[in-house]
Amino acid sequence: MPKLSRRFLVTLAALAALVPGARMLAQSASQPPDAWEQAFRALPAAANIRGYDEHLSARPHAVGSAYDKENAEWIAARFKEWGWDARIERFDVLFPTPKVRVLEMTAPTRVVARLEEPNLAVDPTSGPKAEQLPTYNAYSIDGDVTGPLVYVNYGRPSDYDELARYGVSVKGAIVIARYGASWRGIKPKVAAEHGAIGCVIYSDPADDGYVLGDVFPQGPMRGPDGVQRGSVMDMPLYPGDPLTPGVGATPDARRLPIKDAATLTKIPVLPISYGDAQPLLAALKGPMAPAAWRGGLPIPYHIGSGPAVVHLKLAFDWQIRPIYDVIARIPGAVYPDEWVVRGNHHDAWVTGAGDPVSGISAELEEARAFGELLKKGWRPKRTIVYGAWDGEEPGLLGSTEWVEAHGPELRQHAVIYINTDSNGRGYFDMSGSHTLEHFINGVARSVEDPESHVSPWQRLQDRDVERGTPAERRQARAGGDLSIGALGSGSDYTSFLQHNGVPSLNLGYGGEDETGNYHSIYDDFYFYTHFEDTDFAYGRLAAQTVGTAVLRMADARLLPFEFTDLAGTVSGYVSELQALVKQRQAEARERDRELADGVFAAVNDPRAPLLPPPAEQVAPAMNFAPLENAAAALTAAAGRYTKARAAAAPHLDDHGDVVAAVNAKLMQSERQMLDPAGLPGRPWYRHMLYAPGFYTGYGVKTMPGVREAIEQGKYGDVEREVARTAAALDRETALVNAAAAELERIGEK
Amino acid sequence: MPKLSRRFLVTLAALAALVPGARMLAQSASQPPDAWEQAFRALPAAANIRGYDEHLSARPHAVGSAYDKENAEWIAARFKEWGWDARIERFDVLFPTPKVRVLEMTAPTRVVARLEEPNLAVDPTSGPKAEQLPTYNAYSIDGDVTGPLVYVNYGRPSDYDELARYGVSVKGAIVIARYGASWRGIKPKVAAEHGAIGCVIYSDPADDGYVLGDVFPQGPMRGPDGVQRGSVMDMPLYPGDPLTPGVGATPDARRLPIKDAATLTKIPVLPISYGDAQPLLAALKGPMAPAAWRGGLPIPYHIGSGPAVVHLKLAFDWQIRPIYDVIARIPGAVYPDEWVVRGNHHDAWVTGAGDPVSGISAELEEARAFGELLKKGWRPKRTIVYGAWDGEEPGLLGSTEWVEAHGPELRQHAVIYINTDSNGRGYFDMSGSHTLEHFINGVARSVEDPESHVSPWQRLQDRDVERGTPAERRQARAGGDLSIGALGSGSDYTSFLQHNGVPSLNLGYGGEDETGNYHSIYDDFYFYTHFEDTDFAYGRLAAQTVGTAVLRMADARLLPFEFTDLAGTVSGYVSELQALVKQRQAEARERDRELADGVFAAVNDPRAPLLPPPAEQVAPAMNFAPLENAAAALTAAAGRYTKARAAAAPHLDDHGDVVAAVNAKLMQSERQMLDPAGLPGRPWYRHMLYAPGFYTGYGVKTMPGVREAIEQGKYGDVEREVARTAAALDRETALVNAAAAELERIGEK
Repeated sequence: MPKLSRRFLVTLAALAALVPGARMLAQSASQPPDAWEQAFRALPAAANIRGYDEHLSARPHAVGSAYDKENAEWIAARFKEWGWDARIERFDVLFPTPKVRVLEMTAPTRVVARLEEPNLAVDPTSGPKAEQLPTYNAYSIDGDVTGPLVYVNYGRPSDYDELARYGVSVKGAIVIARYGASWRGIKPKVAAEHGAIGCVIYSDPADDGYVLGDVFPQGPMRGPDGVQRGSVMDMPLYPGDPLTPGVGATPDARRLPIKDAATLTKIPVLPISYGDAQPLLAALKGPMAPAAWRGGLPIPYHIGSGPAVVHLKLAFDWQIRPIYDVIARIPGAVYPDEWVVRGNHHDAWVTGAGDPVSGISAELEEARAFGELLKKGWRPKRTIVYGAWDGEEPGLLGSTEWVEAHGPELRQHAVIYINTDSNGRGYFDMSGSHTLEHFINGVARSVEDPESHVSPWQRLQDRDVERGTPAERRQARAGGDLSIGALGSGSDYTSFLQHNGVPSLNLGYGGEDETGNYHSIYDDFYFYTHFEDTDFAYGRLAAQTVGTAVLRMADARLLPFEFTDLAGTVSGYVSELQALVKQRQAEARERDRELADGVFAAVNDPRAPLLPPPAEQVAPAMNFAPLENAAAALTAAAGRYTKARAAAAPHLDDHGDVVAAVNAKLMQSERQMLDPAGLPGRPWYRHMLYAPGFYTGYGVKTMPGVREAIEQGKYGDVEREVARTAAALDRETALVNAAAAELERIGEK
Repeated sequence: MPKLSRRFLVTLAALAALVPGARMLAQSASQPPDAWEQAFRALPAAANIRGYDEHLSARPHAVGSAYDKENAEWIAARFKEWGWDARIERFDVLFPTPKVRVLEMTAPTRVVARLEEPNLAVDPTSGPKAEQLPTYNAYSIDGDVTGPLVYVNYGRPSDYDELARYGVSVKGAIVIARYGASWRGIKPKVAAEHGAIGCVIYSDPADDGYVLGDVFPQGPMRGPDGVQRGSVMDMPLYPGDPLTPGVGATPDARRLPIKDAATLTKIPVLPISYGDAQPLLAALKGPMAPAAWRGGLPIPYHIGSGPAVVHLKLAFDWQIRPIYDVIARIPGAVYPDEWVVRGNHHDAWVTGAGDPVSGISAELEEARAFGELLKKGWRPKRTIVYGAWDGEEPGLLGSTEWVEAHGPELRQHAVIYINTDSNGRGYFDMSGSHTLEHFINGVARSVEDPESHVSPWQRLQDRDVERGTPAERRQARAGGDLSIGALGSGSDYTSFLQHNGVPSLNLGYGGEDETGNYHSIYDDFYFYTHFEDTDFAYGRLAAQTVGTAVLRMADARLLPFEFTDLAGTVSGYVSELQALVKQRQAEARERDRELADGVFAAVNDPRAPLLPPPAEQVAPAMNFAPLENAAAALTAAAGRYTKARAAAAPHLDDHGDVVAAVNAKLMQSERQMLDPAGLPGRPWYRHMLYAPGFYTGYGVKTMPGVREAIEQGKYGDVEREVARTAAALDRETALVNAAAAELERIGEK
C-alpha cells in the first residue's frame, strides 16, 4: 500500500541518521552508495550560512562600491582558509549610475514622484543610505522627455496588439508598464519599437504588494514606497559589458564607443513604486483597460492616452568600473583537465541578503565542507572550480566576461556548470540541460527536505500529484524522472550554456514565501531572517544538494550524462513547433473569416469601440521532416547508448582508457548543439536548443531559431532554421553513437 | 462568399424599411410573413418608453409605499386608455421594514458603519430621502449579536469547504461575505448551517465598483457608499408571501404564524457598502485568503477569525402590507380559453428606473401598440393577458400570489408565460422552456438591433463565433437554433413555470453596460438616461421583440411548440448527470488516494498550514437506464411530431377541429413534467426539469431531483429521482406521440 511504502522509506531515512550507511538503502538504486557523499552531507551548518549572510549583506555592495571589492576579497580569503586555490579576476565594464532622476506629472495637476525608499526604524539592516544606489534601471539612456501617458499593461508585444484594437497609439507618448509577465528590459525595448519616447515601470500591488499579503515591515510584501531596481540592457542580444561583446573586458580589450553599444535602451526608463504610480494612473482617461490589465490599485484602470502628461528626465554617470570575480579551485586527482564548474554571484543591488547573498552563502558552506573533506583525505577525480561572480545584477557582467575571456579553455575542459542564485524556503527548482535531467533527479532523491522530511524529489512529485493537471499527475505517479525546465536567461549560466555549450544546471529552493523585496533596500538581513529562510534550514539543504551534485559529477567514473531524456524532450519540442504552426494557421484563417463575415462589426459596442484586428498572413505548410528525422535518430542513438552503458557498467574498472575516451566525448556533447553562426540577428547566442526569448527576456525559447521565426511570422526563415537545428541534433546523434560504440567494445569483451 | 451574403441580407433589411413587405424576404423561412406583425413592429416609440420610465420612477415605489399604489393605478389606467380590460388584484403579504440597523466594530478599534447612501447634487432623481427604504435585506430576522468576524468569500458551500482546510470555524462568529457568485439569500442560509450567528454582505469593488469602471456620478459603477438592497428570503424553498405558501394571500387565506415561516433567515443579515466594509476587512488577521477570494480593496484580504469583533443589531416592523397586481386582457377571438400571458413587475427597491421600470415601460409600449392594432381591426385568436406585478423585489410576491390564487385556471388555460424585467443595451438574452427554443430563435431573427443593424439573433451568433469556445463557434456557424438557457429563479416566471408547468420565456436586452446601481437609490432616471439605454433604443427593441413573440403565439394556427430541441437538451442533461457521477467518483478516489499517500502532509507549508481535506464516500455506480430510455423515447416522439407537423402543414385550414385538439394537447405539454409531490424537501417546486438550486438560489439546476442528490452526496436518493424524472419525461413523450398521431391523420388525408 502506498501509505505504508512511503512511511517505510521515512523510517529507513530516520534509521539512516543513526546508522551510517543504512540510509543508502533508501536512495535511488541508480545512485551508488558513497561514503564521501555521506560525509559531505553531514557537514553544512545553518549557523555558518547565517554568519556569511550577515557579513556579506552588512553594507550595500553593488558594482563599483567599496564593499563589493571587500566582499570579493573576503570570499577569496575564505576559500583559501578552507584549502582552495583562490584568486580574484578583475574586469573593467561600463556601469552607469544616476546623476539626475526626475519624474513628474505636469497635467492635469502637478505631482512629483518621490523616487525614494525610506529607511524604517524597525529594520536596522536596510543599509547606510549614503552607500545605496538610488532606484533606477541600469543601462537606460539619458533623456529629457515630456509626453502624454499611456498604460500598456506588462508592455509585451501582445499588449500592444490589444492597444491597437482600442485605437490608442504610443507614438510620442511615455508609457507606464507594470513589472511582471516579461523581463523588465523587454518593456522599454517594445515601447521604443512602437514609437514611445519614454518608459516608466512600476510594481503593481496585484503582482507585488498588498494583494499578496501584509506589506513590510508588518509582512513580507512590497509597500507603497518599494521600488524594484534592475537592469534593462538588451540581454537577449548579448549579456555582459555592452562595450566588449564576445570578448573579456580585460584592460586591453577593444571597446565600442558608448553610442555603438547595441544593448543600451533606445528610450529613457525609470522604475517607480506603486505609491508614485497611483496618481499618474488615476489621472488617465480614455478606454477602460481590459479586465486582465487591471491591477490592485483602488482606481479604475484607464489606458489613456492622457490627459495625464508626464515629464521624465534622466542623466547617468557613464563610467567604466572594475568588477571582481573570485575563482577558486580544487585540482582533480585523476582527470585534472575535466572541470566541474559551479558559481553564484556576490554583487547585489543594495545589501541583497536574499539576492544573492542567501545563494553565495550556501555556496561558501559547500566550499568549507569540501575543505573538511580534503583534510580527511578526499581528493576529487576531476577539478572543481567555484566562481563567485561580480556584476550579475547589471547584466551578468562577471560571469560573461570571465567566460568570454576563458572561452577556449572552457570549451575544452568544462564538464558542467552548476549555477545558483537567491535561495529560499520551499520546493527544489531544477532547470537545465536535458542531458542532466536524470542526473539531477538522482541528486534530488538523495537529500531530505527539512519541513516534510521526505526528499525534495518526493515533495515535487507530491506537488505534481496534488496541484498538477491530470497529465502531470499521471506522469508524476509513473515515478520516472521529473521533467526539468529549459534555461532561458536571468542568471550566470547564460554564457556557459548558450554561448559556449557547457551543459548547465540552475538550482535552488523556494516558492513558499511570497516576498516583495526584490531589488529593494529591504532585501536585507532583517527581512531575510524574519520572512524568508529564517533559520537557514533551506540554505543548509541547498549546500547539501548542490554539493552532492558537484561531488557526484567530480567523482563519477563514467560521466552521468543521459540522452533518452534529451531525445524525449527534443521530440516534444518538434511536436510543439508543428502544433504551433497549425495553431497559427487556424487562428489566422479564423480571424480572416471573421473579418470577411463582418463579425467584429456586429459585436462592436459603440460606447466601448474596438477596431477589428488586422488581417494576417496565413502560414504556409512547412517542412519539418529534417527535425523529425533528427529527433528519431537521436532517440535511437540514446537508446543504443543507454543499453551499451548498462552492459559496460560491471567492467568499467578494467577499461580506464575506454572510459576516459568516452568521457572526453560526453564532455563535448552539449557543444554539438552550438552553431557558430548563432541565432538570427543575435550571433552571440549559439545554442540551437535553448535561448532567452527575444521578446520574453528571461523566458526560454526552445529551438529558438525555428520557434521565433514562427512566432514572429517570418515564415520564410523557418525551413532554414529547421535545417540548422536538425544539423545540430545530427552532430549530437553522431557523438552519442560514437560514445555508444566505444562502450559496446567493453560490453563485448 | 460569406461577406457578400451577410451584406446582401443587410441590404434587404434596409430595403424592407422602405418597401413594406419586402423585409419578409430577409426573415427566417420558418416564419410566415404577417402583415399584423409588420404593423405592430412599426409602432413602438422610444420617446413613449422614456416618458413611462420618467413617470413611474419619479418617486420611490417599494411595496407599501404610496407611489407603489399610485403606479399600479396609473398602469391600469393606461391599459384601459389603450382599449384593454384592466383591473387591479390586491393581496396582503408579510413585508418587514427596518426599525433598527446597527453595525459596529468593537475591537480592535471602534468603527460604526454609516449604512447610508447619500444623495448627490448632480442627480436630482435619486428620490425623496424621506420615502426611501433604508439599506437592508428583507426577511432577515431580528437579532442582536456580537462575535468575531470571519471573511467567507462569496459564502457558498464550497467556500466553507475551503475555510475548513484553513482550520477556521464560523461557529459563534459573524461572517462577512461579498455579493456575487451565488444569490444573496444563500449566504446567510449557508452561514447559519455552519453555525454563524450573523451575516454581513458587502459589494466588493472587484465585482461591483471601481475595478470595473469609473464610479457614479463620474461613471456607472458603484461608489464607496453604494449598497445593494435585496431579499434574503429562502426562495429555493418557496417564493411569495412567507405566511401563505401554496395559496394566494387573499384576505381570507390561512396564514402561518411568523415564527413558522420557513423562508425567513435563521440569523440576522445586513448589506453594506465597500466603504463600510473596508475597515472591518482591514482589521482581520489570520491566514491570507486564497488568491481567488481577494477582491479589489487596497488591503491584504485575511480570513480571520478576528481579531475584529463586530456587533450587529437589527429589528424590523413585521407588518402585513397590500400589494397591487395589474391584470389586463384582450379577449381571444377564436380561442378565448387559450391565454398568452406576459408580465413584468412594477415595484422597485427605490425609484428603480432600470430595475424594473425599463422593463415595465417597454411592456406598456407593447400594450399601447396592441391598442393601436385593435383600432385597426386586429383581433387576436387567443386571449392576451398582461400582468404588471407588485412585490417582485421582496420575493416574487405579486406574481406568486396571483399564480397561487389562479392556479387551476392557469393550468387549464395558459399557453405560455413571457417574462421580462430590467432592460438594457446590448445582446438579446433568451432563456426558458426548451419546447420554445425554436420559437424564440425565430422571433430573434425577425427584429433589428439598433447598433449593429443586424438581427439580435445574428449578433448572438456573431458573439458566439468571436468569443465562444471552438465548440460554441462550430455550433453557432452551423446556423441552427441557438441554445437558450434553462430557467432557475430571480424573476416572476418562477411560479408559472416551476409551480404550474406553464412553458415560460424570460427575455431582455443587456450586457453592454456594466452598472453598479443594482438595488441602490442611484438606480434612477438620471442614471439610466446617462449610463444605460440612454435613448431607449433597446427599450423600443424590447417592445418590438416581446410584442412579436406575444402576437405570433396569440395568432398561431398550430401552436409553435417544438420538441426536438427539448429532446436534444434532455439527452444532454442525462449525459451531464452521468458524467457528474463519474467525475465525483474520480475526485473522491483521487482525494482518498492522496490522503493515503500522505501527499497533503508532504506539500504542507508549515507557515501557511492547510489541513488535509476530509475523506469522501465514493459514489456507487447508479442506474441511469430509465432516464436514457426516456430521453430516447422522447427523441423518437419529437422526430415523429416534427415530421407529422410538416406533412400536415399545407392542410391545417381544412382541419380546424384537429388543429384545436392538437393545440389543446400542446398547451398541456409542459404540465406533463410536473410531479405533484414536488422536489425532495421543497414540494412547492414541481417541475422535474428546471428549478432554482437549493444552494445557488437564482442559478438553475436542471433535472434538479437527480442533480442535487448527486451534488449533495445523497447517493441513496438518486435512483428514486431518476425514476420520477423519467416518468415525467415519459408523460411528455406520450403527449407528443398523441399530438403527432392527431396530425398524422391530417397528413394521411
